[in-house]
Amino acid sequence: MVKKLSDDARAALLPGLPAWTLDAARDGIARSFRFKDFVEAFGFMSRVALLAEKADHHPEWSNVWNRVDILLTTHDAGGLSQRDIDLAKAIDAL
Amino acid sequence: MVKKLSDDARAALLPGLPAWTLDAARDGIARSFRFKDFVEAFGFMSRVALLAEKADHHPEWSNVWNRVDILLTTHDAGGLSQRDIDLAKAIDAL
Repeated sequence: MVKKLSDDARAALLPGLPAWTLDAARDGIARSFRFKDFVEAFGFMSRVALLAEKADHHPEWSNVWNRVDILLTTHDAGGLSQRDIDLAKAIDAL
Repeated sequence: MVKKLSDDARAALLPGLPAWTLDAARDGIARSFRFKDFVEAFGFMSRVALLAEKADHHPEWSNVWNRVDILLTTHDAGGLSQRDIDLAKAIDAL
């Protein structure tokens, strides 16, 4: 069972993800990406999709032309978990 | 220049897209799709992405695991245009 991150764990882990913001209402982390055009944006989404499927942990995300908005939260845990941190780091590394 | 559809054109065209609902606030058409899992959902999105890029007309869409929500509207026209109707038909044909 995946557990929600404790306050201490958040304080330790979130500074490692400076481009992500905490979404308090959803208890998740969010990041917006902008690309040159739709091809670049959807290319990025395809890479994220492969990472997500491999991790068996999937984003909530939307796309409008060159923009991709990602929210990571863990439904099974009822909020932010280590799996979100790991996926965010993998996305940042793309 | 792409033009917004007239009331008469809408009355003629929208019955051909029974699975889509008119979003009055955005002046677009919307449809939700549900699939077996993320792989099926993202596979569908990849096919739509290719259609959209080919048509140079892109959806506003979001995905949460097995669900894909699509909104079609034409920013250049300030609302629903023939390009949305054509893309919706192409998506329906997938």
